Amino acid sequence: MTKVLIDCDPGHDDATAILYAARHLDLIGITTVYGNQSVEKTTRNALSLAALLRLDVPVAQGCEQPLIRAFRHGGDVHGKTGIDGAELPEPVQSVVDAHAVDFIIESARQHRDELVLCPIGPFTNVAVALRKEPRLAKWLRGISCMGGTTQVGNTTPVAEFNIWSDPEAADIVFRSGAPMWMVGLNVTRQVGITSDDIERLDAGGEVAQTYAGLFDFFRQRLSEIHGISTASLHDPCALVPFIVPDFITYAECPVEIELSNGLTRGMTVCDFRSLTSAKLENIRAKTASNCQVAVSVNSRALVEHIMDAILEWPSTESANDYVRSDSLS
Amino acid sequence: MTKVLIDCDPGHDDATAILYAARHLDLIGITTVYGNQSVEKTTRNALSLAALLRLDVPVAQGCEQPLIRAFRHGGDVHGKTGIDGAELPEPVQSVVDAHAVDFIIESARQHRDELVLCPIGPFTNVAVALRKEPRLAKWLRGISCMGGTTQVGNTTPVAEFNIWSDPEAADIVFRSGAPMWMVGLNVTRQVGITSDDIERLDAGGEVAQTYAGLFDFFRQRLSEIHGISTASLHDPCALVPFIVPDFITYAECPVEIELSNGLTRGMTVCDFRSLTSAKLENIRAKTASNCQVAVSVNSRALVEHIMDAILEWPSTESANDYVRSDSLS
Amino acid sequence: MTKVLIDCDPGHDDATAILYAARHLDLIGITTVYGNQSVEKTTRNALSLAALLRLDVPVAQGCEQPLIRAFRHGGDVHGKTGIDGAELPEPVQSVVDAHAVDFIIESARQHRDELVLCPIGPFTNVAVALRKEPRLAKWLRGISCMGGTTQVGNTTPVAEFNIWSDPEAADIVFRSGAPMWMVGLNVTRQVGITSDDIERLDAGGEVAQTYAGLFDFFRQRLSEIHGISTASLHDPCALVPFIVPDFITYAECPVEIELSNGLTRGMTVCDFRSLTSAKLENIRAKTASNCQVAVSVNSRALVEHIMDAILEWPSTESANDYVRSDSLS
Amino acid sequence: MTKVLIDCDPGHDDATAILYAARHLDLIGITTVYGNQSVEKTTRNALSLAALLRLDVPVAQGCEQPLIRAFRHGGDVHGKTGIDGAELPEPVQSVVDAHAVDFIIESARQHRDELVLCPIGPFTNVAVALRKEPRLAKWLRGISCMGGTTQVGNTTPVAEFNIWSDPEAADIVFRSGAPMWMVGLNVTRQVGITSDDIERLDAGGEVAQTYAGLFDFFRQRLSEIHGISTASLHDPCALVPFIVPDFITYAECPVEIELSNGLTRGMTVCDFRSLTSAKLENIRAKTASNCQVAVSVNSRALVEHIMDAILEWPSTESANDYVRSDSLS
Repeated sequence: MTKVLIDCDPGHDDATAILYAARHLDLIGITTVYGNQSVEKTTRNALSLAALLRLDVPVAQGCEQPLIRAFRHGGDVHGKTGIDGAELPEPVQSVVDAHAVDFIIESARQHRDELVLCPIGPFTNVAVALRKEPRLAKWLRGISCMGGTTQVGNTTPVAEFNIWSDPEAADIVFRSGAPMWMVGLNVTRQVGITSDDIERLDAGGEVAQTYAGLFDFFRQRLSEIHGISTASLHDPCALVPFIVPDFITYAECPVEIELSNGLTRGMTVCDFRSLTSAKLENIRAKTASNCQVAVSVNSRALVEHIMDAILEWPSTESANDYVRSDSLS
Repeated sequence: MTKVLIDCDPGHDDATAILYAARHLDLIGITTVYGNQSVEKTTRNALSLAALLRLDVPVAQGCEQPLIRAFRHGGDVHGKTGIDGAELPEPVQSVVDAHAVDFIIESARQHRDELVLCPIGPFTNVAVALRKEPRLAKWLRGISCMGGTTQVGNTTPVAEFNIWSDPEAADIVFRSGAPMWMVGLNVTRQVGITSDDIERLDAGGEVAQTYAGLFDFFRQRLSEIHGISTASLHDPCALVPFIVPDFITYAECPVEIELSNGLTRGMTVCDFRSLTSAKLENIRAKTASNCQVAVSVNSRALVEHIMDAILEWPSTESANDYVRSDSLS
Repeated sequence: MTKVLIDCDPGHDDATAILYAARHLDLIGITTVYGNQSVEKTTRNALSLAALLRLDVPVAQGCEQPLIRAFRHGGDVHGKTGIDGAELPEPVQSVVDAHAVDFIIESARQHRDELVLCPIGPFTNVAVALRKEPRLAKWLRGISCMGGTTQVGNTTPVAEFNIWSDPEAADIVFRSGAPMWMVGLNVTRQVGITSDDIERLDAGGEVAQTYAGLFDFFRQRLSEIHGISTASLHDPCALVPFIVPDFITYAECPVEIELSNGLTRGMTVCDFRSLTSAKLENIRAKTASNCQVAVSVNSRALVEHIMDAILEWPSTESANDYVRSDSLS
Repeated sequence: MTKVLIDCDPGHDDATAILYAARHLDLIGITTVYGNQSVEKTTRNALSLAALLRLDVPVAQGCEQPLIRAFRHGGDVHGKTGIDGAELPEPVQSVVDAHAVDFIIESARQHRDELVLCPIGPFTNVAVALRKEPRLAKWLRGISCMGGTTQVGNTTPVAEFNIWSDPEAADIVFRSGAPMWMVGLNVTRQVGITSDDIERLDAGGEVAQTYAGLFDFFRQRLSEIHGISTASLHDPCALVPFIVPDFITYAECPVEIELSNGLTRGMTVCDFRSLTSAKLENIRAKTASNCQVAVSVNSRALVEHIMDAILEWPSTESANDYVRSDSLS
């Protein structure tokens, strides 16, 4: 079973990614970062989610700000707590006594060639880890992220929030040489929970009802701000290549991050010319392909698969008996 | 009948634009600019095309380099002459005794509220004219350009040749306040002449045979360099809104030009968030819509319409009797 | 006698440059540009100064905004009219019927190899002229500007107002290949009129009294805003190489303009490493020397020389008999 | 006695800084970084210098590359080993079992309010430490660096090597809020060892003779590359504020790092306008003073003081008895 470490900023869709990973993969740890809210809040949310799901998984707190610029959190979408919409239980465990940066490095060292790292918030923790321990890139089986977009952005016309929040960190990660999967907004925005779905969840058990509350809040904010009618499950999409690979189609191409302080700062510049052009030298492409970029998704099938994971989540018995028993990979 | 002034750098597809404009619109002048080749060559090509088509239209020579950076011409696609593939006749007229910049200004002053300016090469002439005479923006009925892209670029991963050649000039034009239509690579690349089309032209009259030669050369170069199987008729697309508007669908949105010297210099940044989002202030959009951006095209119908214009072009009698007799607008 | 064309935005120190040039050189024309105020106001001021000085010199109006960014005028230093502090006479002549851009080109064509162009406002007119007629750079004897700085700036920590107002235009001029002299803030700020000087002028004739009023206003604004105790005569310094060359010491070195949109936009980057280093290739210098950069000035001698020109200016008889009779060059 | 931690990339002048700090301050540790050579080589050099000087001080190895761009080491000035010119002894100790980043954080935590951190190579270690543990900025007594310049650069026309090597890291440090001293090239280049000085050292003991060899090599390379006749002792200057403060004069002002990818990337932009101007709001300064910037130096007195420290260094008895006995602070 694929070992996975989620680096996140819960966050409504992060909450779904944690559940979905725990259901189908070997989730060996959660590291937190600022993003949808401050790192103190996202860490508390991660611990509360572990309590809700009765998960026995270590949580390590990470960086509180991006490498270069002052941070502006995403609280307008996710609310004051970073995960408004349902009352989560009090945490039952504490964070581990290691910084997220070191937890990532040590996990990769311990599970060499086996671990998939999933950054689904700003990439600061991973970037700092790569600069502190450059061998990290070789120790990992891969990095599969939710971030970027091949088309329209959500934070600027062309930039997605996670990458835009710390473009220099994303640059470090995309240049690291680790095998990369980028599942961006162009795909994740199609993976939306409808109001019917929310009703179905609301008729379910304790966990499903909690997620119903979260999704309901999230859907309303996305509607108000971005004019979108469904609650986009961005973050769990980063796990799909290791759960049901067929749900998403990827194109292999060069991806670079725009760092200039112009209109396009934080853009994931994908060189799709390589897909149509016979010869890279003719189009003066400077960079080799470094990433599998998600270009299409079987969105309804994926939503149903995620819905199942939530609806079937056991409310009383040990979740650790439930999870890790039915993975496809 | 719509009056049009074409600012161009012929160029295979420029040659088609000139014919197509002369067939259906009141083409009051041609100004030339560096681009597909040096301005000396593109000017000579414009004069030769006028001779081939027996057009009595003034040609004014313009700028020989972009505002800021040294120019690298597009000769790899269009060949040594800028329009390789057929032997064009010697020019029969000379350029007029006015710089393109002044010709543009005077034409707009004379045909106030009536003139559509069609830049289908780098935008340097138009930009210099706007700085010399700021009222130009108000005198024009509109500016309809071939340039930019909403998706993949041809010169860099995200930039199209005309805009990339002089991004500062494009910035001046897009901010000018004149009504704008942008027909970019995302649409024009779909408007492709096939080898079957070329055979049909080759079976036609003198003019059609000449265009067959031009397209055959152009198709081979695009195939070698960009892996494209058809000869893209980029430039005539800029005239479509005034000939058969229905052939192309437009979206109105803010367009800005990336001027930073990073990965995305010369990108036409279209804020399509405005199309999905209820409220502009929520997405922190700073710019109002300033452009009709082409987003889809009835490509086969358009190709056929252009083919007809070429095939029906009279070889012997005065072209000026033929043109301007069948416009839709 | 050196022929000179002043491209200016009067402006208190511009007024002094016009008088100083008319006194010692063959001032063949004045072109105007936005800068210290709108181009309408700076043009009117130029005409009023010609009336005050009884000069028969053509004035051509030029550009009203910079190439790229929206303009923010320097009115906080020069006041509402652009030249507050004294009542100037009504203009007695009109502007000539040619745009400044064309006036510059035609003057250089007519006085080939003889004309020195002195931009002492933003460089927009000169840049547009160079793009419209690239041969201009070869026709000129040289370009001697007031602009830039080798040390502290006045508009940003490292940028001077004239260059900062239109960095892209300055880039075009500095790369033009014309022989260049750059007299920057590092030198011009030392050329200051004191309150004693102002008293001496106030005891002089009509013209001297008018300049006393102008300098008094200017000195107070500079004191309030920049904490400087004297009225800096920036602009006449650009004429010094052709009047009394010994007053200023120059260093020949590469100068480039920073165009990036960061902290240093509009900085005149002078590569003084070339002055200390044995070999340019060792310091990876990419650019050849293109400019004589002013590095020191005999400031009191220069102030006295300018004071003399003002004090001796005739108030009643024809100024055109007075001027051009005592030049050193 | 001031506690100091040197973050360095030895390096000829780094070697002098280590000796000078050990002589007059409480040197609690050395951390290493890439720079004058790879981090493997600079670490080995640090250990060899400790052996030469018989210092019992912990050495921790740090980052091997800058945050964003690929690194180009300074080996052309410092030679293949990073400290060519003398044969240094084999190391007698090993690096400690902690990354430089963690060693910096733990040292600051342990010696809260007492520790001065002296980065005299690229700032990557300090920047990563600040992002991993933001409280570091408050725990430090101050950061005193060798880096930047107020005038001419050595790596570009305006940028100094340490800052240019990792501008993003420098930006993090300068914005950290820790009390800062910046001793830049404008001052350190004046602190030069002459050939006479080298002869005096060569007539001294074992340690002095070794430094004579190092300086002789360094002087020749600086002469060949930068046309400088003396061996600049850049790095020890960063310690001067805590050893003999009077040797250097400082100006307090805002310092920001240029991160744009233009001509001035890596420039330390010092807003000296604040020194002349009455009111910061008038000059639109955005940033408060964050640094004491070295502006002048009593260079000969400082060289003699450093010479004394080298000449008096004991060759046989325990250096730890010698050092820390004669500090002025």
